[in-house]
Order: sequence, then structure tokens, then C-alpha cells
Amino acid sequence: MSAPPFDAAAMAELVRTGRMALFVERAHDLEPADLADVLASLDEDERVAAVRALPPELSSQALAEMPVEEHAGETLAALAPEQAAEIVDELEDDDAADLIGELDPVTQEHILAGLEHRAEVDQLLRYDEKTAGGLMTTHLMKVRDTDSVAEALEEIRRRSEEVEDFYQIFVVDRRDILVGTLPLKQLVTSAPDRPVREFLEEADIRVAPDLDQEEVARVMARYNLASVPVVNPAGRLIGRVTFDDVTDVVEQETTEDLLRFGGVSGELSSDVVAAVRSRLPWLLINLLTAFVAKSVIDAQQDVIGRLPLIAAWLGVIAGMGGNAGTQALAVTVRRVALGLVAAGEARRVIVNELVVGALNGLANGALVAAVALLTHTGGATLGLVVGLAMVGNLIVAGASGAVIPLLLHRMRIDPAVASSIFVTTFTDVFGFGLVLFLARVLLLH
Amino acid sequence: MSAPPFDAAAMAELVRTGRMALFVERAHDLEPADLADVLASLDEDERVAAVRALPPELSSQALAEMPVEEHAGETLAALAPEQAAEIVDELEDDDAADLIGELDPVTQEHILAGLEHRAEVDQLLRYDEKTAGGLMTTHLMKVRDTDSVAEALEEIRRRSEEVEDFYQIFVVDRRDILVGTLPLKQLVTSAPDRPVREFLEEADIRVAPDLDQEEVARVMARYNLASVPVVNPAGRLIGRVTFDDVTDVVEQETTEDLLRFGGVSGELSSDVVAAVRSRLPWLLINLLTAFVAKSVIDAQQDVIGRLPLIAAWLGVIAGMGGNAGTQALAVTVRRVALGLVAAGEARRVIVNELVVGALNGLANGALVAAVALLTHTGGATLGLVVGLAMVGNLIVAGASGAVIPLLLHRMRIDPAVASSIFVTTFTDVFGFGLVLFLARVLLLH
Repeated sequence: MSAPPFDAAAMAELVRTGRMALFVERAHDLEPADLADVLASLDEDERVAAVRALPPELSSQALAEMPVEEHAGETLAALAPEQAAEIVDELEDDDAADLIGELDPVTQEHILAGLEHRAEVDQLLRYDEKTAGGLMTTHLMKVRDTDSVAEALEEIRRRSEEVEDFYQIFVVDRRDILVGTLPLKQLVTSAPDRPVREFLEEADIRVAPDLDQEEVARVMARYNLASVPVVNPAGRLIGRVTFDDVTDVVEQETTEDLLRFGGVSGELSSDVVAAVRSRLPWLLINLLTAFVAKSVIDAQQDVIGRLPLIAAWLGVIAGMGGNAGTQALAVTVRRVALGLVAAGEARRVIVNELVVGALNGLANGALVAAVALLTHTGGATLGLVVGLAMVGNLIVAGASGAVIPLLLHRMRIDPAVASSIFVTTFTDVFGFGLVLFLARVLLLH
Repeated sequence: MSAPPFDAAAMAELVRTGRMALFVERAHDLEPADLADVLASLDEDERVAAVRALPPELSSQALAEMPVEEHAGETLAALAPEQAAEIVDELEDDDAADLIGELDPVTQEHILAGLEHRAEVDQLLRYDEKTAGGLMTTHLMKVRDTDSVAEALEEIRRRSEEVEDFYQIFVVDRRDILVGTLPLKQLVTSAPDRPVREFLEEADIRVAPDLDQEEVARVMARYNLASVPVVNPAGRLIGRVTFDDVTDVVEQETTEDLLRFGGVSGELSSDVVAAVRSRLPWLLINLLTAFVAKSVIDAQQDVIGRLPLIAAWLGVIAGMGGNAGTQALAVTVRRVALGLVAAGEARRVIVNELVVGALNGLANGALVAAVALLTHTGGATLGLVVGLAMVGNLIVAGASGAVIPLLLHRMRIDPAVASSIFVTTFTDVFGFGLVLFLARVLLLH
């Protein structure tokens, strides 16, 4: 169908049974991402043994392709520093910096000391790994603005050893200031004696080294760029970010968004302690809000004492409010994230959600009223109570599901993080309160 | 910082006040995505007026860049068929097919009839838009396996008019069977008289036209490809998908996943009727499960009658179970989506979640026990009841948050769609039942 078929389990088994020669032989035929999967499926000890056996040009690529969660750096740290340095030297500078960046300062220094390309990696390590500087490579194709096409081609031939893939040729002046780009196509299809200046395209779209990685991904996606130049404040070309660096960013950010929405901070990890640490704070905050909601019921305990059957309805009304609120929230959070809510449109979004809440409230309210009517003797008034409470709570759900993320966004807080707790608190408090209030007024007189 | 600064509101205002000449003049300086934003911010009538005024080479790109939600096809349909055809003819065949694919058959036929490149667009329209065939363009760079480097370069020059961007040169045999790829770099850096066969790289990674778009995106991300060849079952090269087509797919799929997780089927839309239609079914299913949970309370109504204060605790325990279950669910769903749960690892994932649930249960259980102890006279036993119920329910939450998505995944159902409803039903039923059971046994004797 797509990738060449290979049997990851069989490859892993070769390592486990010590048939290293055969493992290495077969590893030559694998794509780096596939070999990375094999390594990821091994225990730490087996992985170190496998990496020791592999030639550095294979192990380096595979380690660079391993998912962040697997901490390829630890494997590197378990090797002799010279061997680790040999592996790192095989990598593009950005991948090298990513791997080394995972390590503690002492191990870092040991490996860095053995690197041939230490200067480049050192430079990249200075940038926050979640910025354009942290994503970029310094290896790029650049030619001078005074070159002819023939000279540019010569320069590209000269550099082609060092630069693995390129999608654009950058044109700089004598101070290395970025003045434009040259489409590769132009270079291939133009007469050799023409000056490259003639084919120069403006390089309007560029990023600063401290730009957040999510923003870099957005710019590249928006303008359909395979690579984007990174320039310092003076306009000097210092690196480039390629589309494949950004693919990983999008995957990471998607994970982060979904986890946040589910009330989990931090990364995916199979470590129990890390999991508790990333989830317990959120649960404790939720507990606090649960007590707020509970206090609404406590304050009306006499209603429950006189009318115990109402207790079971509290969960139905509050729960449905929570569900409807989460729906409104998911839609609004995603609209905000995609930049689909323009300034001045907030009111329309909120009104829409109110109307949707009212319509869904009427449908569900009619249903619960009917159920109450049919299952309780003299259930007409009870039906009125739960039906009205459902309509009211689903309107509140729609409104809070839209208002809260929009407010948080305006306050520059990521609405994905904190919205759901406010929304469900609202729907719980309001749902409980409304059922008990209506029950007191309509049923206990 | 990144994109050239431009004032979308000012541009839109030019259209609204009828200053079309100035609008068109300024539009020439905008990137297509920026012009698309301006069009998206206009009303339908204004947008049609703007598109009428723009030259087709500008309006076509901007319409192609408009977000799916804005239905650029409608604007196209409002134009005279000849003008619409002129605009569509400016587009790459894949963008043309996407735009035309939105329209009803009659309008489609009117526009198709006026197209110069009708055959290509017709061919692409035959594929499901969410497959490789729907994403691909038929415009690509290909050379014959018998060519020399010089002949290949000549062929590329000839085709460079028609092919907008290319990242790979495909090599085919005389029957158009894909035999390999030629890195652009090789072509630029090799002697003209060498045969291209010498530099051929294997094209192992290829996709079938009916492969789902999400799978296409995964393959390209995994192997860091800027473009991937689409081949028919016989091995004939029929198109290519480029990274920028796939960026949009990732964005769409992220939206879909988050919405599904929030209980919303369908797409983002600002239409109230569409919103109700996409949310009401989910709410009705939730209502059904809420009645299941309610029946647990109804069955124990005598406990509530004799001990009304327990009613307020029901929501606390069930709610916290729902939160913890959603956390476990978000983590497991994401791990499954990223392919991080290998065969045979399911048991370890479930055990981990059980342990995390137990630990979080102990922390929260101790807290609620303390609160019960401090707020009720003789609250020690009540504390025991709610503390034990919390521990038990958070263990159930962890287990069901892991087991349910893993089971659904094994049954080939997308766990993002249906998991949360099962998890919260479990935590509600179990939470209510446990509190009431423990209260009966420990408090009512």
C-alpha cells in the first residue's frame, strides 16, 4: 500500500537473541522511521546494544526519528562519549541539537567535546527548543546576489555535500543579509550567463529565531512553504526551518490540545508518577468546584428530605448541561484556535450558541418531561420542573461554552486549558439550583 | 515578524465602499492566503463583487486558499459560468477539482463545459475528496528512465510552464510505470551526459489513489516527504500529493478529533440548524445513559429519604470519576491515534491507568473524607463512605478510560467518537451505586 513491508517484531527479536550481524544487515534496507520503531520497541539495554552494533550513519537517523516520548537521548548517554559523538556528527545540526538538548549538562559536555561540528550545535543549543531557532538548521543553500546562474550552480554543487535537502535557494548580499530567494526551477531552466538578480523573488515571509514553533508552523502552512528562512533582527540569514520539522510540531501541539481539553497537562508518558503529577492538580481543582456545586444542594437539603425522588433528577439535568456545554466549548475552542472568530463576531457566536442551547434544551426537556409524566403518579408538575430545568440549563450550557473560551482568549489565556472546568461548574451549579428551586416552588406548595 | 504587514479590514472597506480600482491594485501585493482572508471577511454579495473585479489569476488563488467552512464554491456559483470557468482554469487541477466538487451537479456541468482543462479536472472529480486521489495533482515532473541528465533537464524545462512547484522528479518507463525518483540536487550537480539511471533512487514509498487522506498524511510525515507519488494498481504514475495539501488535512483531522472528543459530529459551521443536527443525536444518547445512571439512584431512594445529606455527595463522587475517566481517555485516545500502543502492550497500559486511578483516588479520597469529618457531627463514618467511594470510582475511571478506547480500536471503531459516553456512564453508575451501597451498609445500621 505505502511503505515497504517490514517486520518490526522480527527485527527486534534478532536483537533480543543476539543475532546482531543479521540485524545490522537488514537494518540497511529500512527507512530511518522504521528502524526507529524497532529501536523504540526494545528495552533500554537492548536498544543500547543495537545502537552499538549499528554503523553510526544508520543509528543516528533512527535515533533522530524516535518519538520524543522515548527519550533517545538516554540511549545516547549510555554509550561511550566517543561513540555518541560519532553518531551525533552524522546528523544534521538541528537533529543533533535536539538529541543533545535532552541530556544533562555533564553528559552534554562529554559528547560535545568529541564533535567535529561542535560550533554549529553549540549555536543551536542556545535557542529555546520550541522556537524557530530551536527548529532550524544552519545548513542551507545560499548564493550571492551578484552571481550569474552558472556561478550559482557551481556554488550549489560545492555545497551539495553538506546540505541534505533543499527547497529554496536563498540569495544574500555581501553582509549575508537576505535579499530574496531563487526558485530551484528557475535555476534549472535559465541560461547560465544570466545574473540571478533577474529571477530573484522577494523573501517577504521570514521568521525571527525567537518565534514560537506553533507560530512558525502556522506561517508555513498559511503560505504553503516547504522551507522558511530564519533571519536575525539585522536581517542576516542564520538558518531555515523545513516542513518536516513543522510536521512534528503540529503533531505535538495536537496532542497537547487534546490532552488539555481532557484535563491533562504535560506530555504523553507511560510513567505512573509523571501521570499522577500531570493529572492530580486538575482533579483537585475540579474537587474544589465540585464542593461549590455540592453547597448548592446542601443549602436546599430540606427539599430532598421532603422529596427524595428529586435527587436522581439532579444528576440528569446537571450532566446533560455538562455535555451540551462541552459541545459548545469544543466548537468555540477550535474556532478560536483556527482564527475563525474575527473581532466583533463574538456576540454573534454567543447568540448562536444560546439559540442552539435553547433548541436542544426544548428537545431534551420535552423528553424528560414525558418520562417524568409517565413514570410518576401525578408526574405532570414534576415533568414541568425537570423540563424547564433542562431548557434553562442547556441555555446556560451554550452561553458559558461560548462566553468562557472567548473571554479567556481575550485575556490571552489558552482557552483549551481552563475552559472546561468553568463550564461544568456553571452547568452543575445552575442545574442543581434550578431543579431544586423549581421543585420547591412548584412541587412543595 | 513574519508575513508582510497588511490591513485586512481596510481592504474589505475598499470593497464595501465600492473603491474597486484601488482594491484590485492593492490585491496584487498580497499573498493568496491574505487575500483569501479579506474575501472571507466580506458578505456573500460583496465577495462576489470583489471576485468579479479581480483578475482571474488573483481571485483563483484566493478562492482556493479560503477555509473550507466559507464555501468558496458558492461564490463561484454566483458568477457567470464563463467567468467562473476562467477562474478555475487558472488553478492547479487539484484545487480546481476541490472548488468545483463543492457545487451541485448542474452548476458543476455549466462551469466544466467552459474549462480548457476539463479532462484533468473531470478525472480528479472521480476520486473521493478525502483520499490520495482527491488530494493529488496530475501535474508533475517526470522523465524517462532512458534519458541522460541533459535530456532530463530539457524535459523539465519544457514542463516547467505547466508544473508549478516540484520537489522530486519521477522516473518512469515507457509504459509510465514508476521506476524511481531523481533528487533534484542530483540533476543540478551531475554531468549532463550521464544517464539518469545512475542516480535513480527507489520509489518504495508510494500511495494508492484510494488511500484515506489521514493515512497519506501519516506516511508523508513519517518519512519526511515533500511529495509522494500516487500510483494505480498496475504501478502507473497517475499523480502526486504535496506536503501543503497534507497540512490542510492535518488541520481538518485535528478539528474533527477535538470535536468528536467534545461530542460534536460534523464540521465547524456557524449555521444553527447544522449545529443542532450535529449535536442533538449525541445529547439524546447521553440522555439515555443518564437515565441508566438515574435508575441506580431510584433503586436506592430509601437511602436518600433516610439520609438526605448523601444526595449532595453523589454528584461529587460521580463527577470526579467522570473527570478522571476523561483524563485517562484523552491520554489513551491520543496514544492510540499516534500508534504508540503496540500489540501486547494493552495490558500494561490498563494496569498503569489502574495504578494512576488508585493513587489519585487515595489523594482525593483522603480529602473528601476529611471534609466530611469536619463538616458533619459524627462524620467519621460518612468520611469513610465518601473516601472509599472516591477511591473505588477513580480506579473504575482509570480502568474504563483505558479499556474502552482500546477495545473500540480493536473493533476498528474510532475511539475518539464513542469512548467518552461509555466512560462517563460507567463512572456515573458505579459512583452513584458505590456511595449509596456504602451508605446503606455503614451508615444506616
